[in-house]
Amino acid sequence: MDTLMKVFDKAIESRLDRRCTFVALGGGVIGDMCGYAAASFLRGVNFIQIPTTVMAQVDSSVGGKTGINHRLGKNLIGAFYQPQCVLIDTDTLNTLPDRELASGLAEVIKYGLIRDAPFFEWQEKNMQALMSRDADAFAYAIKRSCENKAEVVSQDEREGGLRATLNLGHTFWSLLFWVQAIETSYGYGHWLHGEAVAAGTVMAVDMSYRLGWIDESIVKRVNSILKQAKLPTTPPEMMTVDMFKSVMAVDKKVADGLLRLILLKGPLGNCVFTGDYDRKALDETLLAFSKS
Amino acid sequence: MDTLMKVFDKAIESRLDRRCTFVALGGGVIGDMCGYAAASFLRGVNFIQIPTTVMAQVDSSVGGKTGINHRLGKNLIGAFYQPQCVLIDTDTLNTLPDRELASGLAEVIKYGLIRDAPFFEWQEKNMQALMSRDADAFAYAIKRSCENKAEVVSQDEREGGLRATLNLGHTFWSLLFWVQAIETSYGYGHWLHGEAVAAGTVMAVDMSYRLGWIDESIVKRVNSILKQAKLPTTPPEMMTVDMFKSVMAVDKKVADGLLRLILLKGPLGNCVFTGDYDRKALDETLLAFSKS
Repeated sequence: MDTLMKVFDKAIESRLDRRCTFVALGGGVIGDMCGYAAASFLRGVNFIQIPTTVMAQVDSSVGGKTGINHRLGKNLIGAFYQPQCVLIDTDTLNTLPDRELASGLAEVIKYGLIRDAPFFEWQEKNMQALMSRDADAFAYAIKRSCENKAEVVSQDEREGGLRATLNLGHTFWSLLFWVQAIETSYGYGHWLHGEAVAAGTVMAVDMSYRLGWIDESIVKRVNSILKQAKLPTTPPEMMTVDMFKSVMAVDKKVADGLLRLILLKGPLGNCVFTGDYDRKALDETLLAFSKS
Repeated sequence: MDTLMKVFDKAIESRLDRRCTFVALGGGVIGDMCGYAAASFLRGVNFIQIPTTVMAQVDSSVGGKTGINHRLGKNLIGAFYQPQCVLIDTDTLNTLPDRELASGLAEVIKYGLIRDAPFFEWQEKNMQALMSRDADAFAYAIKRSCENKAEVVSQDEREGGLRATLNLGHTFWSLLFWVQAIETSYGYGHWLHGEAVAAGTVMAVDMSYRLGWIDESIVKRVNSILKQAKLPTTPPEMMTVDMFKSVMAVDKKVADGLLRLILLKGPLGNCVFTGDYDRKALDETLLAFSKS
């Protein structure tokens, strides 16, 4: 919020008018904040995204979600505001730290899993090229990811249901109080977003398998590709079942029929967003992945 | 901004979710701030306006403009965000100070002048009833004002052109640097918004007459009705021509053809928003209403 106010101060002191354009050059936090500033300054000015991380290029720069973090949680204050243009230059990845690169790949893998089996298969063949920063491989992976996201968002901009499927792996991780728990326990920045998504994806896949909704081969392939991408496949060791339940409000939400999860169902590339599942499978998954 | 943050803090601490509704009970500042909070919290939640001043009832609660003030100016940070409902109870006016009441009437008078001659004529006959807070008269005045504003806004929500005509009287007053000048010279709250609008309206009418665009009778009727409403018909005494020109950036903007003004033209109830006028008339009006 302090940084946002600095943006407003500068814009006002520079006497920018409605014809100005805000340009976000950086990662997801910069893009989200700059987009919210553009949405709010004079009630909306032009906005261009130039994302410089894999995560921002394949996910946060597309779809119009903008916002700033609050000390009590992420993504609580913001606006839906579409940029006039998203400009992606893969050369910006040349200086991106390895761990940031891998974190972004967690979202790339997600698109294949939830809606694009051929893309997942392409990734299985090209993960080493991606990990060695092959420019052509990255150009393709980013393009397909953006297309997947754009297709979903164009059908459901305000997240009525379909857009929620983009949160695969997130449900175990990104609920307000859960993020709080990780951040409180671990301190900010201990886990990158994509790392949490990766571990959450493994848990969602595990639960889908326990429900009998997917073949074991998918479980193996997901674990294998995440390991190739050097991403975690289990949550932080300190997490206990009780911490999960408390943070996800599992007991209350399941009782109220409100704990809808994104799970895989059927052949590779298919998912559902549902609260209609056997509670036992959820308990077993939580137990399998955390201290009792 | 500090108050806005307190609203967010409270909403987050109370664990409000997307199904919550923000209710703005108060004047224009409360409605604008609460609306912006509703637009931004979780990227948009339900919002209801219950305006309690004439100004808020006839103007700011209708049309979806929300926002907060910045120390360098008003209306610079905000969003276009429509309430689900605007609930107006004229009983709230019973305890409104006289000066606030009159300030709101400046906007009521404006609607008649720019687009609704029968409404202006009704006001001429009923101004004493309004000043004595007659409930029936107020109900009618507020209803007609909201209808007028809603008609304009529904045709031009984002202020491409038509909506700008609602700024009659404002162009002389509300440009960023002008508001700054008044606030710097006078201190916040010395003039109410409607008082500035009234004096600005007289100046716009004077200039329209100098251009030969309206009859002298309209000038007299405007002065007369504003005086009945106990509203100022001249700007603050300390204003000089140079202050006007500097604040409105008159010289540069006229040279660039950018100083478009809302002026009356033709029979009562007709206005134009134009930069195509004789510069001499503007100079004469500035000179007539301020120190040289």
